[in-house]
Formats: sequence, structure tokens, C-alpha cells
Amino acid sequence: MDQFETELWYTEKQTPNHGITTRINRTLHHEKSEYQSIDVMETRQFGNMLVLDGMVMTTDKDEFVYHEMITHVAMNTHPEPKNVLVVGGGDGGAIREILKHSTVETATLVEIDGRVIEVSKQFFPEIAGRLDDPRVQVRVEDGIQHIREHRNVYDVILVDSTEPIGPAVGLFQKPFYQGIYDALREDGIMVAQTESPWFNRDLIRQVFRDISDIFPITRLYTASIPTYPSGLWSFTIGSKKFDPVEIDESKLPRLETRYYRPEMHKALFQLPQFVQELIEK
Amino acid sequence: MDQFETELWYTEKQTPNHGITTRINRTLHHEKSEYQSIDVMETRQFGNMLVLDGMVMTTDKDEFVYHEMITHVAMNTHPEPKNVLVVGGGDGGAIREILKHSTVETATLVEIDGRVIEVSKQFFPEIAGRLDDPRVQVRVEDGIQHIREHRNVYDVILVDSTEPIGPAVGLFQKPFYQGIYDALREDGIMVAQTESPWFNRDLIRQVFRDISDIFPITRLYTASIPTYPSGLWSFTIGSKKFDPVEIDESKLPRLETRYYRPEMHKALFQLPQFVQELIEK
Amino acid sequence: MDQFETELWYTEKQTPNHGITTRINRTLHHEKSEYQSIDVMETRQFGNMLVLDGMVMTTDKDEFVYHEMITHVAMNTHPEPKNVLVVGGGDGGAIREILKHSTVETATLVEIDGRVIEVSKQFFPEIAGRLDDPRVQVRVEDGIQHIREHRNVYDVILVDSTEPIGPAVGLFQKPFYQGIYDALREDGIMVAQTESPWFNRDLIRQVFRDISDIFPITRLYTASIPTYPSGLWSFTIGSKKFDPVEIDESKLPRLETRYYRPEMHKALFQLPQFVQELIEK
Amino acid sequence: MDQFETELWYTEKQTPNHGITTRINRTLHHEKSEYQSIDVMETRQFGNMLVLDGMVMTTDKDEFVYHEMITHVAMNTHPEPKNVLVVGGGDGGAIREILKHSTVETATLVEIDGRVIEVSKQFFPEIAGRLDDPRVQVRVEDGIQHIREHRNVYDVILVDSTEPIGPAVGLFQKPFYQGIYDALREDGIMVAQTESPWFNRDLIRQVFRDISDIFPITRLYTASIPTYPSGLWSFTIGSKKFDPVEIDESKLPRLETRYYRPEMHKALFQLPQFVQELIEK
Repeated sequence: MDQFETELWYTEKQTPNHGITTRINRTLHHEKSEYQSIDVMETRQFGNMLVLDGMVMTTDKDEFVYHEMITHVAMNTHPEPKNVLVVGGGDGGAIREILKHSTVETATLVEIDGRVIEVSKQFFPEIAGRLDDPRVQVRVEDGIQHIREHRNVYDVILVDSTEPIGPAVGLFQKPFYQGIYDALREDGIMVAQTESPWFNRDLIRQVFRDISDIFPITRLYTASIPTYPSGLWSFTIGSKKFDPVEIDESKLPRLETRYYRPEMHKALFQLPQFVQELIEK
Repeated sequence: MDQFETELWYTEKQTPNHGITTRINRTLHHEKSEYQSIDVMETRQFGNMLVLDGMVMTTDKDEFVYHEMITHVAMNTHPEPKNVLVVGGGDGGAIREILKHSTVETATLVEIDGRVIEVSKQFFPEIAGRLDDPRVQVRVEDGIQHIREHRNVYDVILVDSTEPIGPAVGLFQKPFYQGIYDALREDGIMVAQTESPWFNRDLIRQVFRDISDIFPITRLYTASIPTYPSGLWSFTIGSKKFDPVEIDESKLPRLETRYYRPEMHKALFQLPQFVQELIEK
Repeated sequence: MDQFETELWYTEKQTPNHGITTRINRTLHHEKSEYQSIDVMETRQFGNMLVLDGMVMTTDKDEFVYHEMITHVAMNTHPEPKNVLVVGGGDGGAIREILKHSTVETATLVEIDGRVIEVSKQFFPEIAGRLDDPRVQVRVEDGIQHIREHRNVYDVILVDSTEPIGPAVGLFQKPFYQGIYDALREDGIMVAQTESPWFNRDLIRQVFRDISDIFPITRLYTASIPTYPSGLWSFTIGSKKFDPVEIDESKLPRLETRYYRPEMHKALFQLPQFVQELIEK
Repeated sequence: MDQFETELWYTEKQTPNHGITTRINRTLHHEKSEYQSIDVMETRQFGNMLVLDGMVMTTDKDEFVYHEMITHVAMNTHPEPKNVLVVGGGDGGAIREILKHSTVETATLVEIDGRVIEVSKQFFPEIAGRLDDPRVQVRVEDGIQHIREHRNVYDVILVDSTEPIGPAVGLFQKPFYQGIYDALREDGIMVAQTESPWFNRDLIRQVFRDISDIFPITRLYTASIPTYPSGLWSFTIGSKKFDPVEIDESKLPRLETRYYRPEMHKALFQLPQFVQELIEK
């Protein structure tokens, strides 16, 4: 008698005029932390879903795309990343991917909202499960402050932020990228999630320009994430020395991944025309 | 920053083409019992909401209407109701109202799904809280079977069923009403919830005809219940002796109620024209 | 292959946390007039639906309730209503009902938005079809201004306004009711639609108090309107001389109606307890 | 007063448990043709939207992706496509793209539902506007029948079908692909839209296997289409002679496009790992 079951749908307006709607069995968690609302829902299509301030952050079924893609492109571009920082990313997914690289000595997570970490550990063990690895240092503090206080220490910095609303606004501004430049070693590389090429073109243009004002090498790539607005997501790289399109793919380590493949590393930068136009003068 | 909060809405299609949608903070319970799906949600507009097989059964904020109105019209028509039966009604709301009548000696609840009772006790203590009164007997069993096995024992029988789908279909059929007639004492009176005059006209016509074939006195009245389809709900009375429109309102007890008032008792039967037409030959 | 049909649903948030959703086949009209957005949709459940500023005003299937009930209670309380004014009511439904009373000599419609009248004539001929009756005068002008400029001329005034938002705010304020008092003859009577007893209790309390400060007789009654918030709607009467609960129902004319019946006239004022409390000191 | 505007949202369940919801101003067209329901809506996010049997076919804002990507990969793989067939594709978008290739002598559109063509001409002139080009032949007939009746005549065949439901079921079956093989010249190439790698994995696996049983060269690529399920769409190529990954990108014509770029031609075939696994033995 499936037709008589209770139907509960979570709808996220991803823009004022468009969104997704997904069926849920139940909510698993609901709180307002010091920084944001935190909800976990059990969906039918995507498994458990983490929602911060009404925006889907991650789901069991498609989290691998975001976490692999924010991590491995930069990590595989740097020849020997030892000290890696994640700003945001309290769910622990980027950390999990970072630890797949055998060169890594320290992986530091700086997340402003400790509740996100706790909730992720409880409801997303597959994602957050590596946060207790001895190489990992978890710091519940302001990423902007952390960046300000560090100079010349990191090989790779991942900016794994929420949308540029509320606590994450500063993570999309030029002074923050300058701080990241300073916090990186002389051959360091950064990557930031930079929203949807369909819905956030001005933001992508602005961030790409800001980062290219600071870093000698700037690159944009995308990935398919069905629960994110438009289903297409962008990432922007700023690099001091190593260019992701000039690496030797044949020498890349073969990690256990479900989206990223070494063979796609350079292909990623062959963007659709309308995206390419966002990053040209 | 209310605009960034997670928005979760429960939508119930009350007909194939119309329904309500109500914002929820979280689900409190979700199970499939032997008979139906049982969900409890924390809504913003109506407090906790009990949903069986995808249909709203009751909410904190408007439950008083249904429970008072299925109970007091019949109870106040009978001069001395001592033994009262509720078929269905596992949330305990009708029992709570029955116990407001000082004449009551026994109030029997026959609910086929024991899980409804347990869930109601946990999440709706204001509704189910009187189920442990010493006058109350709770029986987890089939109401149709119970009716078949009892003769000439009840003064008032309330049919507090779910919609005529799934386990409750038999509760809307003529043999069941004949059984109720037989289970009532010689001056007994029954009342059944009989759906919406806007959306269930054929059902109301049929039930009214069936009951009037069996009982000498048949009456219909309505009440406003915002979470039920169309917001208007009907109740059908079958009575062996006492006519609700011929009582002396001035002698009715003044119970603690929020919808039913003795002064409205007779006025209830002055139906809108389109409803009146449903019950005329 | 009904399961493959396009599903288009119109959802109205009737409160910030609750609403209705109804399936539509198509939109028939969409405009922004000088005063408001005007939409007409072809629904499956309720026929054509008129929506102003995102709020359902009327539908083919349940319009009769509102139009009969805003009209006949006051018209039948006044023994000989000759000159009747409708403020708002551009759909023409109240005018249609007024004209059912043989005593009527003039029925004046004062609607601020002429586009509502035109759209209603086009898409709701059953409702607006009597606007060209010779007894009717249609004036596209501000109702507040019209009231200010008239003294001692009307027997009955109906305030058939939209919700107290935007252009209709002034129609819910005390100076307007004082103006109505002055515009009525010495035995005149007014009625205003006063929203939902479930969702607008403060408004009902305030309007009832304001009107009872001005008129010697004040009464409240309700009607079931499934497409209006909560499904229950209130109307407030202010009367200079005639009390609706003291008329002789047996002498009322039998009009062709689908909701109002002379037999319910007095019964209407036997309110549910929670509504009664809104109008008691 | 934007907050008071009517909100009308079109929701498409793209799977039983997930979908998109998009705000519309109005419906522009609504009919049931001989084959399917045809709706055109004016959306806020994507301009006009064509919906067949409740599934989004195309929108003003993102149509370029689908139409360029179903066309140019195959057309640019074939060195000199002269005679091109589109099966389905009644909106005319693929035809528009085909005509950008200067080698084309005839472009044949075989669409079973002539109403789709007429509606597209009326509401999507930017998409359907090239259907009256002298090189174009429009045939309103069954694509399967057309394929059966043609041998060795086409250089390129595009299968631009609706979802594998209703009239389009046969367009996803092996005998149809064999027929296409036969209808192609000895160095011909076909491409079919093959749904979402996220939601239709079994279909992609099956179609890829069927086509590779028939054609010596089989390739899969994807594109980002925000209004299609999951936002990621797949296309499968079957080729008799020319391999799309072995062309010389530097010799490709530079067409006026917004998604496809010659530089991405080979990169398209570097699939995400989870998609790659669908097409490996």
C-alpha cells in the first residue's frame, strides 16, 4: 500500500526561482548552532543529507564527487604535498580524501562551527570517519583568523566553504585569498569551491579575477553534483608554481576514487564555452 | 537570519488535485506498523501532528474540535450515558472527552493498531493522557469483531475511524452499522465521522442512507477542522430514541470545552443548503 | 497514461507556515495592474480561480459560500434594503446576490481596481454576469473616498475587501467603519469580511471592538470556504437598529441559494467557544 | 510589493523520490496531442519551457547544451556529413545545429508528433526557427518505421528522443539500433541521448552494450543540463569507421556555439570513474 504512505518532501530554493525537491523518510537531527541551522534528513534518493542554513551541503550518495574533486586536482598537481589545510569542511570529507595521499604528514581542519563536526561524526561516519587519524588536527576556530596567523606553512589549502552567505562571506573575498597566498609555501597551491557556473557567474568571474591578481597560475574546473544548484559545480585553483595542466598524468598515483581519475586531470580544464567565457578577460 | 533556515514542508494531497502544505521543524517518529505508516511531525502552525498512511489524523492545535464534536453531541443527547465505546480513536482524544461526563462508568477503546496508542501516549500526552483512567478499558483488537460480539451493552458508540481506505473500509459499511445498532442498548445512540461535505458527498449520502435504514433517528452536523480536507468535517448520528434536536439545551452540563457549547447544540443541525441536500431524499 | 501528465500545482502560503496546494491545468490570465497582481488559473478541483497578490479571492466551485454569506445575512436582517453599496468586490459576486432581493433599487459597486472587474467579466461570467443589470452602478474609485463623500444614503453596506495588506489596509481600520456608519441611513446595517478565526484572531478581536464602539449592535458569524485560510471565514455585522438574531426567520424570502438558508439565519450566531471568546470582553 | 505576488511553481518528479521545482509566471500552452500532453510554461529561471508528458524537454536558457552536444560531437567526427537524420527532436534544435555545418546537403527531421513541431515554432522561435531552411525536410511519421524503410542513405543519425516511456520506448531498443546501422552509409555515425548517469545506470549500460554489439566503435560522453534529471546527461555514439577520440581537433571548424568547443572534443571522453564503470565489461 505504498500509495498511502506519508509523503514528506524537502524543497530547497537554490535560487529565488528554482530549486530541488527530494523525498525524505524523516529528519534525524535539527538544531540551531551558534552559527547556523543544522539539519540531517534521511532521504530516499540520496541517503542521509546534511543541510546548513537551508542549503544542502552533502549527501551519502553524491558526496564523493565534491570531496574528491576539491581535493585531488590540487593534491595531484603538487608533487609532494605534506602539510595540508582545509578551511571549513567540517563534515570531514576533504580530510578523508587528503589522507589518501601518502605524502601527507599533517592535515589541519579549521572549522568555525564545532557542531557541524559533531553532527557529521554521528550521522555521516563514512565521510567524517577519518577525523581521528593521527595526522589530522581539528581546530574549531575562524578560518580567516587562522589564515591571518599563519605564514609560509602549507603546501595545499582547500577552501571548503558554505555558500557566500552568513558566516562564509569572508571566505569569498580578496583579502582572504591574499592571506592564503601568504600562508602557503613558495610552491603552494590553493583550491576553493566557487559555486555554479549556471547560477553564480558574477561570483565566479570575481573570484577568478581576484585569485589571478594574486597567484601566477589560476585555473577553473567543474564537476557534476546532482544535489547542488544546477547540478554543475566549479572549483578555482590558485597556484604559485605548479600548473595543473602541465603535469604528467601517467605519473599520478591511482587512488581509490569514484569520480576523479588521473586520465581526466587535464581534460577537466577543457571547459564549456559559456564557462570559459567567465574566466577570459 | 530566518531566511536561511531549512524549509521542510509536509504536503498532503487530500484529493488527487488538492491538498495542504505545512511547515515542519522535524519528524519525531516514523514507522510502519502492522496496519499502516505512522508519522509524527513537529509543525510550526499546529504543534505536533499525527499522520497515518499519509493522512493527518490530529494535531495539537486543532484536535479539540474533532474530539469534542465527535463526543459531546451524542453524549449530551443521551440523558445518562454510562457505558461508552469508541471504535478506532487510538489517540485517546474521544476517551478524554467522554470522561468529562460524570455519568460515565466505563469507556472502552477498541483500536486495531496498538502502535497508534503507544505513539499517541508518547507524543500527544494532552490527547492520550486519560487512557489510564480506571474507567477506561483499552482493547487492541478489530472493532468490527468487537461489535459482532457485543449485544445490547453500550449507551453510546463513537466510530472514530481513519479514512475509508485500508483497515477502515469496513467501518463505513452498512453491516457494521447494523452491528452497532445491535450492540447499543434500546435507547442507545451512535455517531460516526463521515468525511468532508465538500469532497466526499457520495460517501455522506450513502452512510446517511444506510444509517437511516437502521436507526429511527438520523442526523448530520459539521465542524471546522483546518487540517482536515476542505476544513469542514461531518458527523452522522444514528439514534434509537433520543433526538438531538429535541433536547433541552438549558439542562446540558457546562463542560470545559473550546469548540462545543450547549448553546450551539441544536444550531449545529441547521446545515448549509448544499449539505442539507445530501441528506434529503 | 494519466501518470505522465504534466503536474502543475499552485501553492498559497496562507500563513508563513501553512498553506494550500491545488493542481492547475493552466493559467488563463496573468497581469500586474496598477494595484496588484491578478492571476486566473484553471484548477482541477475548484474550476477557475481568481488570485490577487498571491491570495485566492474566489473560485467557481466555492464562490457561492462567500458571496451568499457576505450578502444575505445583512440583507435579510434589514426589512427593506433599497440602496446597497459594495466596497471592493470587483468580481461582482456580492452584487449578484444583492440583486436576488426584490426590494433593491440600486446596487453600487465601488472597486478601486477596474482590472479586477474586467478580468472577472471575462473569466467568471457566472459571478460577474449581473454587473450590467440596470440597478447596478459600477464605480472604479477608492472605497474610502467614496465612503467619506456619502452621508445617510445606504441601507446596507458590504465591505468585500481583500486581505488587510496593500490597497485594502484602510478597509480594516476604525475611521473607515465610522465613515460607513455615517454613510448608512438611520436603520442601516453593515457587514465586513473579517478573515479566519483560526489564523487572524487579533484582527477579529480588534475589528469587532472597533465596530461595537460605533454601532449599537455587533454580531459575528462564520462560513466554510475551503479555499480560504483554515477553511473557516468570519463576517462581522454592525447594525444601527435591526438585530440579526431577533428577526422572524419564517418571514424571510426563500432565495435561490446553495449555502444560506433562512433556517440557519439565527443558528449562525451560535459560535464555537474559541470564536465566541474572541468577541467577549 | 514582490512578496505579495502569486507564486506558481512547476514541480517535476524526475525520479519517484526526487525532482526540480521552478517558478512560472504563466502557462502559455496546454494540450493533449494524439501522443502526449504538451505544455509550454513561462518560467522565471529558464525562460520558456517545453514539457512533454510531465517531463522537461527544453528551455530557452539551457537548450543550447543539449542541442549542441547531441549534434556537434558526431558531426565533427564525421569528415564530411552531407545527409543527416534526426529521429524525434521536433523542437528543431538539433536541426538548427546541424545546419551550422557547411557540408550538410539534407537534414531530415522525423517526428511522430506534428503538434510538437507546431508548438515549438510558436513558442520557441530561437530553437525551431531553422525548420524552413531549404535543406530541411520535416516528416511527421514514426521514426522506427522511417528507419526500417531506409538503407545506406545517411551519414549521421541523431536519436533525439523523449524518455523511454510511452511513444519513445522503441527508440531505446536493440532492433532500432540495428536499423540505424543499416540506414547509415558505410562510414556513418549515430548518437543517441541516453539519460542520466546518476539515475539511469541500467539503461546506459544496456544501450552501450547493444550499440557496441552492432557498431565497431562505441563511445559515451556527458554534458551539464540543469533542467534534466541530476543535471548531467549522457550521449552514446555508435560509429562504423570514425572514432571521435582520434580526430584532429585543430582541424575542426569553429562554429558559433555556447557549450561545445573543439578543444573539449576529446576531453569529453574522459569520464568520471563511476560513469566509466558503466561502459566497461
